[in-house]
Amino acid sequence: MPTGERLHASTPAANSSTTGYEDEAWVWAQIKAEARRDAESEPALASYLYSTILSHSSLERSLSFHLGNKLCSSTLLSTLLYDLFLNAFTSDPSLRSAAVADLRAARERDPACVSYAHCLLNYKGFLACQAHRVAHLLWQQSRRPLALALHSRIADVFAVDIHPAARIGKGILFDHATGVVVGETAVIGNNVSILHHVTLGGTGKVGGDRHPKIGDGVLIGAGATILGNIKIGEGAKIGAGSVVLIDVPPRTTAVGNPARLVGGKEKPSKLEDVPGESMDHTSFISEWSDYII
Amino acid sequence: MPTGERLHASTPAANSSTTGYEDEAWVWAQIKAEARRDAESEPALASYLYSTILSHSSLERSLSFHLGNKLCSSTLLSTLLYDLFLNAFTSDPSLRSAAVADLRAARERDPACVSYAHCLLNYKGFLACQAHRVAHLLWQQSRRPLALALHSRIADVFAVDIHPAARIGKGILFDHATGVVVGETAVIGNNVSILHHVTLGGTGKVGGDRHPKIGDGVLIGAGATILGNIKIGEGAKIGAGSVVLIDVPPRTTAVGNPARLVGGKEKPSKLEDVPGESMDHTSFISEWSDYII
Amino acid sequence: MPTGERLHASTPAANSSTTGYEDEAWVWAQIKAEARRDAESEPALASYLYSTILSHSSLERSLSFHLGNKLCSSTLLSTLLYDLFLNAFTSDPSLRSAAVADLRAARERDPACVSYAHCLLNYKGFLACQAHRVAHLLWQQSRRPLALALHSRIADVFAVDIHPAARIGKGILFDHATGVVVGETAVIGNNVSILHHVTLGGTGKVGGDRHPKIGDGVLIGAGATILGNIKIGEGAKIGAGSVVLIDVPPRTTAVGNPARLVGGKEKPSKLEDVPGESMDHTSFISEWSDYII
Amino acid sequence: MPTGERLHASTPAANSSTTGYEDEAWVWAQIKAEARRDAESEPALASYLYSTILSHSSLERSLSFHLGNKLCSSTLLSTLLYDLFLNAFTSDPSLRSAAVADLRAARERDPACVSYAHCLLNYKGFLACQAHRVAHLLWQQSRRPLALALHSRIADVFAVDIHPAARIGKGILFDHATGVVVGETAVIGNNVSILHHVTLGGTGKVGGDRHPKIGDGVLIGAGATILGNIKIGEGAKIGAGSVVLIDVPPRTTAVGNPARLVGGKEKPSKLEDVPGESMDHTSFISEWSDYII
Amino acid sequence: MPTGERLHASTPAANSSTTGYEDEAWVWAQIKAEARRDAESEPALASYLYSTILSHSSLERSLSFHLGNKLCSSTLLSTLLYDLFLNAFTSDPSLRSAAVADLRAARERDPACVSYAHCLLNYKGFLACQAHRVAHLLWQQSRRPLALALHSRIADVFAVDIHPAARIGKGILFDHATGVVVGETAVIGNNVSILHHVTLGGTGKVGGDRHPKIGDGVLIGAGATILGNIKIGEGAKIGAGSVVLIDVPPRTTAVGNPARLVGGKEKPSKLEDVPGESMDHTSFISEWSDYII
Amino acid sequence: MPTGERLHASTPAANSSTTGYEDEAWVWAQIKAEARRDAESEPALASYLYSTILSHSSLERSLSFHLGNKLCSSTLLSTLLYDLFLNAFTSDPSLRSAAVADLRAARERDPACVSYAHCLLNYKGFLACQAHRVAHLLWQQSRRPLALALHSRIADVFAVDIHPAARIGKGILFDHATGVVVGETAVIGNNVSILHHVTLGGTGKVGGDRHPKIGDGVLIGAGATILGNIKIGEGAKIGAGSVVLIDVPPRTTAVGNPARLVGGKEKPSKLEDVPGESMDHTSFISEWSDYII
Repeated sequence: MPTGERLHASTPAANSSTTGYEDEAWVWAQIKAEARRDAESEPALASYLYSTILSHSSLERSLSFHLGNKLCSSTLLSTLLYDLFLNAFTSDPSLRSAAVADLRAARERDPACVSYAHCLLNYKGFLACQAHRVAHLLWQQSRRPLALALHSRIADVFAVDIHPAARIGKGILFDHATGVVVGETAVIGNNVSILHHVTLGGTGKVGGDRHPKIGDGVLIGAGATILGNIKIGEGAKIGAGSVVLIDVPPRTTAVGNPARLVGGKEKPSKLEDVPGESMDHTSFISEWSDYII
Repeated sequence: MPTGERLHASTPAANSSTTGYEDEAWVWAQIKAEARRDAESEPALASYLYSTILSHSSLERSLSFHLGNKLCSSTLLSTLLYDLFLNAFTSDPSLRSAAVADLRAARERDPACVSYAHCLLNYKGFLACQAHRVAHLLWQQSRRPLALALHSRIADVFAVDIHPAARIGKGILFDHATGVVVGETAVIGNNVSILHHVTLGGTGKVGGDRHPKIGDGVLIGAGATILGNIKIGEGAKIGAGSVVLIDVPPRTTAVGNPARLVGGKEKPSKLEDVPGESMDHTSFISEWSDYII
Repeated sequence: MPTGERLHASTPAANSSTTGYEDEAWVWAQIKAEARRDAESEPALASYLYSTILSHSSLERSLSFHLGNKLCSSTLLSTLLYDLFLNAFTSDPSLRSAAVADLRAARERDPACVSYAHCLLNYKGFLACQAHRVAHLLWQQSRRPLALALHSRIADVFAVDIHPAARIGKGILFDHATGVVVGETAVIGNNVSILHHVTLGGTGKVGGDRHPKIGDGVLIGAGATILGNIKIGEGAKIGAGSVVLIDVPPRTTAVGNPARLVGGKEKPSKLEDVPGESMDHTSFISEWSDYII
Repeated sequence: MPTGERLHASTPAANSSTTGYEDEAWVWAQIKAEARRDAESEPALASYLYSTILSHSSLERSLSFHLGNKLCSSTLLSTLLYDLFLNAFTSDPSLRSAAVADLRAARERDPACVSYAHCLLNYKGFLACQAHRVAHLLWQQSRRPLALALHSRIADVFAVDIHPAARIGKGILFDHATGVVVGETAVIGNNVSILHHVTLGGTGKVGGDRHPKIGDGVLIGAGATILGNIKIGEGAKIGAGSVVLIDVPPRTTAVGNPARLVGGKEKPSKLEDVPGESMDHTSFISEWSDYII
Repeated sequence: MPTGERLHASTPAANSSTTGYEDEAWVWAQIKAEARRDAESEPALASYLYSTILSHSSLERSLSFHLGNKLCSSTLLSTLLYDLFLNAFTSDPSLRSAAVADLRAARERDPACVSYAHCLLNYKGFLACQAHRVAHLLWQQSRRPLALALHSRIADVFAVDIHPAARIGKGILFDHATGVVVGETAVIGNNVSILHHVTLGGTGKVGGDRHPKIGDGVLIGAGATILGNIKIGEGAKIGAGSVVLIDVPPRTTAVGNPARLVGGKEKPSKLEDVPGESMDHTSFISEWSDYII
Repeated sequence: MPTGERLHASTPAANSSTTGYEDEAWVWAQIKAEARRDAESEPALASYLYSTILSHSSLERSLSFHLGNKLCSSTLLSTLLYDLFLNAFTSDPSLRSAAVADLRAARERDPACVSYAHCLLNYKGFLACQAHRVAHLLWQQSRRPLALALHSRIADVFAVDIHPAARIGKGILFDHATGVVVGETAVIGNNVSILHHVTLGGTGKVGGDRHPKIGDGVLIGAGATILGNIKIGEGAKIGAGSVVLIDVPPRTTAVGNPARLVGGKEKPSKLEDVPGESMDHTSFISEWSDYII
């Protein structure tokens, strides 16, 4: 994986046989090293870096501290939230491995992401997603009022509104993230990249399964609106600003309002890479323009 | 009203001859019962539920407390805002009946809304709307700098930007709500449902009446942009992601960028239900697809 | 400039030969007078107005105080941020003259802007932009971790996400501002007006120059998405909700998803005024409608 | 009353036939005028003066705001305390007249008290005493856990520890106040002045009436310790640092550790003025020295 | 022990063979029951009681939460302190058994202590002592800067200044507690009662063992000052306001400034009960008076 | 100066010909080195040490930050106080040299003071004294309402109550400090050491010069009460718990309640060292005991 190599000489391959724990330890060591370097070069930020990262003995403690202090309010105290997050991250290793996969996703796919610590501290999409995972765990444990209170705090603080019942895979990049809305019965696969202002919404006032299902490796461009219990196939790409109301087959591109498949409904062009990883939003421009005009 | 019945056995009909006060008392009793049940099942949330709901003797006190603590900042203290809200809600019964109608709207139209307490505590659209009503009252009382300061806090905290001069009816559901923008001379009727990222915007730099007028029972889908002093007729439906620059007749559907009427300009399809209440965003898909392709 | 005259009898022309310092002094005097008038008419707001404006001896102190208290968190204290802002605004006069130009832009272009003080205190677009300018200065000084931490606070608090490396001119109006995203290599000229939910985004996961370049005097409507290293020529206008993936020539209008030029690619209609200043979002409606249908 | 005249030309006599309400209105008008004058002369303090005094329509609102914000904590919110104080001060006029009498006491007896506003804002003894009166009211209403929680906050914030059951008269000056301890069954009469570090303590671990009873007009010097259910007669004076374990007759002076009467047990010197009002701590020096040596 | 029986029918004897763990469980169950009763009778306090007690699963969690939120500051966050306290109380059972013994001491010796919950929540002496025990643990672990920072917060918040190196036994009652000062090399035995303003101080500027050693069962009255490396024998009593510069033999009473033994240096009166438990401050009055005059 | 040498090998003599600026630079360098060492050994405290010391470029910035954050309240924001302190410390070098002298005093006289950083961060007496010096400066500049507001915050936060008009020299040690009260017309010389609970009080309700004057090098023991416009001569010593109502000649010791001179009024024992520096509270015990009994 050339990008990985470019970024750091000795990264263990994310999909190698190393255990999740080793991977977590390696990423945490990187984060500490990055924070230490930043603290040394910028004393004005050192206090922040020590309180959020360098004073902690593990990624889950750092993350629990940071989320607790970001999401607290005068009626939901930071100590309560810290406790809640720490219990969740400590007891459920899959939350930790998902966080690590998300950190890797940001680092590898977003050229503006300069370090793992940068993502951990500053990416509202990353933070909202980790907090959502804890809200989802609470939801599964039938602690729904607490899950919904947490949901509300995430929506207020990050302007990211993911229903606690929504199921989200690993290796997710919510880039910029402001305005993302994900409904109750939505499902998002692994290695998906979702830009800001994206809606995975329902329709109607009747309950039940009513939100989109997003396959592995999908890329959803900024401002796309996907409505109803439809399926976006694996490796598909949804253009920025599209309004999608129908299924999109795997490895195809849908664009426009309403969205149509690039290459036509009958024989759409097939993508060769994984758009959720390549983050190529615009290579279909010529095709699209041709198609439209 | 089947949904209502499904939700609770003995709800008094919202439009019956019961007085607003009885309706308010009934909803408040529900909220207290819901909060009590949640507090018992989830001790970690009990403190939050007592401070926001269970310690209060009335809906207006609970709401004033909650808004005061949500919207306060280091330069606008919670006690000042609490006082402001409490005075408004106590002195103006129409603010309270509007809040009750909005709670009912969320409960009946949004299947993800599990209780009145859930909406009261966690729906940023509901909270932003109630705070807007108070800002609007201040605006009407010529207390404009205070109205604008409150407007600013709502925009910061909830990412919902409703100009204090905008007039809004009752039974409004701002679903998800992040990114909603409503301009100074906009008017919104009763029983309207508006999704997130919706803009009711103006145009040009000259003042005067320059924003949309939304009729009763309208449904506006996510990300729709409606610009200028145009009229969206009662019971109309605006598709997600539409850009609407022209009047939309009553009980018709406009979709697309720029928006066109489903069924054609001359003889548009007429809707049979009230979209603001049925929340059906997508039943026009087949029609639309046919129309477009 | 009739608008200016209408607003205040004796405003010195913004583009006259008066020095920036005189202009700054004049605007600051206006702000103080406005705040004093508001404090007298509204005692409930007087504390806020004194702490934010009336207790300060200069615009940079007022702005530094206000930003410090808006953007602080439990891990980034207001005193640290205040210091940071004050040092930047004091040492770099261009930051102050840009702030003054932005205040004028809001006052002259937005009919809902009732005073300079209104903009200074309440416009999240104005505040986010000034804070960005400081983050950009830090970025240029190679204090990148601090610049990114500030970037993150701006994105959390205002839901405005401008990468600290992005270069932004003077006389900018970010109207409503919620959801604006501006990428790392984007450039925005002078006297540009940008509505909410606008994205100046990149594409792909490779670094380098990958974001739009916006010329002087451009107007970008609500929800427009502009992607890639493309050029929006000076005085161009981008319609609300447009998705722009190709260069737009100077003084032309692009609308739709995907965006096309009004009047056609070969011979697009030329605009006569400066749309970034006239703020006319919709005068092209008839043309557009004709074009489309 | 020459002092009063010196301080302000037109003060109505505190003991005249004017009603308490008129007296309260007069003092409140003074406080507003003082605060207005200070706000004008010191812009840096104006925000504080507006939020605490000038934005309020009555003394009870100002006092409730100030106490609510002083005594709040992360687990007892300012809005809750504000409500509690405002309800108490509004419903019980005797609390307000006691506050007015205490303001007058500080103003007339303490030469370092430069204005009523100074006392209202800055005297921890005054503030602790008013908060105690509310805690006492709660105690009498059998709301004991709340009374004790308030007691605890007063003890933490002001280092003044007055049991909520203790009964305290009007016209009380707790000068400096730090370290004052007043036990559960203590009683303090009217027009008493008590310096800092004074203890009115009990003894033993058995309940019942076990604390001192302090008559009207008594002066208790700094650091005096008075223990047990003993009686300090009206107009008596207790020297600084005294340890008093026995009754002190009216209008006599007790000094020393253990305390003895000046002039001897059999025929103590009688005081001619009211020491609680004259605040003369040391005129007995010569007598005492003579007595001792 | 009649008092104990009076207070609760079925208390296990504190010194019985029950393990510390059972004792802790019993006290914690009492505290929860008391808090539940109070929450039911006083909704305004329920939020406070849930956040501090009822939401927690153990005494150490409740205490860690309460101390973390009481002692935090803008530069020492509550989450950091909570973590610190929780680690200490969880890892060191002697800290928990000492807390339980102190709760019992307050409940049994102070007639104003109405419940264990009352002491846990509101007694600054109790809270300062528990926080000191954690600071002492840190001191012993050579984490001295952290111990001293905690020391400073305790001194600021509770006005109780106990050097982290000071060694303190179990069953301690710091009654009222404001102004207590305990020096670096002081030692306090078990079952000691110390009133407010008591100093166990050193002398000189040379280090080394220079503070008092207080035996088991000692009672030290309010405002007593004990200076130097002297020994207060077990079961001794120090009168309020005394200044003690010399050893006091076991079971004797020292009073006055400078302190002398009641009954005379050669053959002092012997006490029959344990003054630290009986809390009898004043039964020696007649003797003392006789002695002095 | 042997003590200095013992503490650190290369300290420049405090009274040497080095300028105050060099002395300040030396002490600040020590503080930074100490804080750096502590931050390295204790990551949990590093955030605190960076925010208070290590992120600052000078002692006055560090002190202003620390005081601003300690003394702020919801109505007096930290940014306002920070500004106030920083302006004072920057503009008046005597405030800085006094702070340095006080740091030296604590370090040299108090064996429990382990470092300059320890004193700067944790000594409430040191912090209260520096804040007082700023309040005193404001008082002299006729900014009295602001001076009194600051006075009030110091009294609340540190339980140290020094009237802003009181004049205080350099090289002052307020040891433990809780409960210290210093009146309006009090004067304290250089190199004075004052323990906790000490009162320099006035008497009567008439204004004018009415508080004690304390000479250079005086030591005042814990709990001493000194009342009236009397003179404590240079190098005198006041025993703990004394009540002093008469002048005390230079280099003599006064003890007891009421205080008498050790050695007798006519020919008191003369002290050979400077008690304010030697901190010897108790060497006169034998003399005193002899004198009394």
